[in-house]
Amino acid sequence: MAEESGVALVGSDLQVKKAREEEENNGVSVSSVSVEMEGCNNNISSIIPGWFSEISPMWPGEAHSLKVEKILFQGNSDYQKVLVFQSSTYGKVLVLDGVIQLTERDECSYQEMITHLPLCSIPNPKKVLVIGGGDGGVLREVSRHSSVEQIDICEIDNMVVDVSKQFFPDVAVGYEDPRVMLHIGDGVAFLKAVPEGTYDAVIVDSSDPIGPAQELFEKPFFESVAKALRPGGVMCTQAESIWLHMHIIEDIVANCRQIFKGSVNYAWTTVPTYPSGVIGFMLCSTGGPLVDFKHPMNPIDADDTHCKSKGPLKFYNSEIHAAAFCLPSFAKKVIDSKGK
Amino acid sequence: MAEESGVALVGSDLQVKKAREEEENNGVSVSSVSVEMEGCNNNISSIIPGWFSEISPMWPGEAHSLKVEKILFQGNSDYQKVLVFQSSTYGKVLVLDGVIQLTERDECSYQEMITHLPLCSIPNPKKVLVIGGGDGGVLREVSRHSSVEQIDICEIDNMVVDVSKQFFPDVAVGYEDPRVMLHIGDGVAFLKAVPEGTYDAVIVDSSDPIGPAQELFEKPFFESVAKALRPGGVMCTQAESIWLHMHIIEDIVANCRQIFKGSVNYAWTTVPTYPSGVIGFMLCSTGGPLVDFKHPMNPIDADDTHCKSKGPLKFYNSEIHAAAFCLPSFAKKVIDSKGK
Repeated sequence: MAEESGVALVGSDLQVKKAREEEENNGVSVSSVSVEMEGCNNNISSIIPGWFSEISPMWPGEAHSLKVEKILFQGNSDYQKVLVFQSSTYGKVLVLDGVIQLTERDECSYQEMITHLPLCSIPNPKKVLVIGGGDGGVLREVSRHSSVEQIDICEIDNMVVDVSKQFFPDVAVGYEDPRVMLHIGDGVAFLKAVPEGTYDAVIVDSSDPIGPAQELFEKPFFESVAKALRPGGVMCTQAESIWLHMHIIEDIVANCRQIFKGSVNYAWTTVPTYPSGVIGFMLCSTGGPLVDFKHPMNPIDADDTHCKSKGPLKFYNSEIHAAAFCLPSFAKKVIDSKGK
Repeated sequence: MAEESGVALVGSDLQVKKAREEEENNGVSVSSVSVEMEGCNNNISSIIPGWFSEISPMWPGEAHSLKVEKILFQGNSDYQKVLVFQSSTYGKVLVLDGVIQLTERDECSYQEMITHLPLCSIPNPKKVLVIGGGDGGVLREVSRHSSVEQIDICEIDNMVVDVSKQFFPDVAVGYEDPRVMLHIGDGVAFLKAVPEGTYDAVIVDSSDPIGPAQELFEKPFFESVAKALRPGGVMCTQAESIWLHMHIIEDIVANCRQIFKGSVNYAWTTVPTYPSGVIGFMLCSTGGPLVDFKHPMNPIDADDTHCKSKGPLKFYNSEIHAAAFCLPSFAKKVIDSKGK
């Protein structure tokens, strides 16, 4: 175990065993990326004294490090290792299984984009489901939408909820909205039990597909999401980095094109403390009224009443919404071709 | 000195002394950021064995690290420390004074954006000047434009040119174009001697403002650039990260609004191996025919004849050109307000 402060931390020395089925064409599931943890000792070792370093087989050969002022929490939940530390320049940091989930300084871009990209693309969203997102940041953003009547969240790990409420009050503030109903449990099972056509939007705020979130990147899960949505309803799910994970993205896009009968789109944003500095989102709609994600029709920045209680949006605006769908040529080529 | 391979490297433990004049309003020059190097031993020490770590007072409290396969070159030029190493997942890497300048894997986004953002915004660019950019990558991109008749480049450090030709042939290929004329010398002095109205475009591909590039972020330099441009000519200069350097960007924007009588704009792109994962550009035009950078009128992706000799564009396209000018709310607020 690490001491209270000034301790060096690194993600465990994982060995990825990519046992992916060698189907090189459509429909390859990412589910078969499995991981063996070797030399894993509570995600902590002593490489850079006083710094946390994020080393993972998901981004081999590179690491991002933050200087640690003080370790605030360490625990093993039923699902993962949970760590909170005070960094010297990014505020408090939440780490799950050695991977940074959010920092106070840059969480705005992820939370605002994963929420408002789908919710600003449809008129008057009323029922919203969040899968994962235990920190509460997505809830905070969903609750800016005055049309919303019901916000369900299904998070598998109660420790993430508790830790967020204790150490990240500006993120967990989302739980204070009376429209929020928290369900602690498996998102896959929760979705299976949802009556068909229940939600206007489902937001999947998951960690990487090598831990408890693995199933959330698989085809059966996307089928459950599509079923739970009303016609013309929308899904937004975390979909990795175009710089690091095109092979995973290809699979997600191919799966979604098979399952979602409306539109299927990839968007992205910048998050400095995520590997490669960017993170992407898969945005899909079910058959029914056409959803044109690239031209938002429910502009939240046109009305600032929500800012009085929650503060202004820091990152999202309608211009950056549209821009998020413009891809570099190397990514556009792969995504446009996949599954057409 | 480090051994041939498997050596740990970090940027020197710099102590920034920010002796900026305390003028908190417009017109604060960034020139007064000075740096004292303490414990600097050829930018090399032994913190993560086998990894290069980029630690700098320009991004305190965080570091990005790349695994080193082999050190290929180390030298001290008259201006800076030059290092080339083979990384395990980003190809070869060029480092100046401990700061990553380019990697083979992600150089495309920087080189293509800093070049085509200005050159696709004006009709038929003929004369182009590059300040800095000794690696040749900007030259490679400029030479895609068939209208260009003359490409001058003024690079202060001959060692950067030599090292790029030796280790980065796919970048230095830009020097092979017969339209290119290389001038080794001080860009500031070079520009002062340029007859008024000579160039259609000036591209300033500089390192950070705490080394040999310091003067390239100052007002007198921008005045020389404006003078060297024809009416309605354009400048594009490296302009740091919105996540890390808003105070520097504010100053650059304020200076440019005073000096350039056409349009003044900030754009940005993603480069995983730059701090915070993004880098910005200042795009300005002189008085004369209006330049609307946000709606490119010289689309290079409409004509692929240049791809036959140089390969396809990997990053740039017309959509991402326009998207690059869409800013997160926190940055837009500062940039829009500054110097209006």
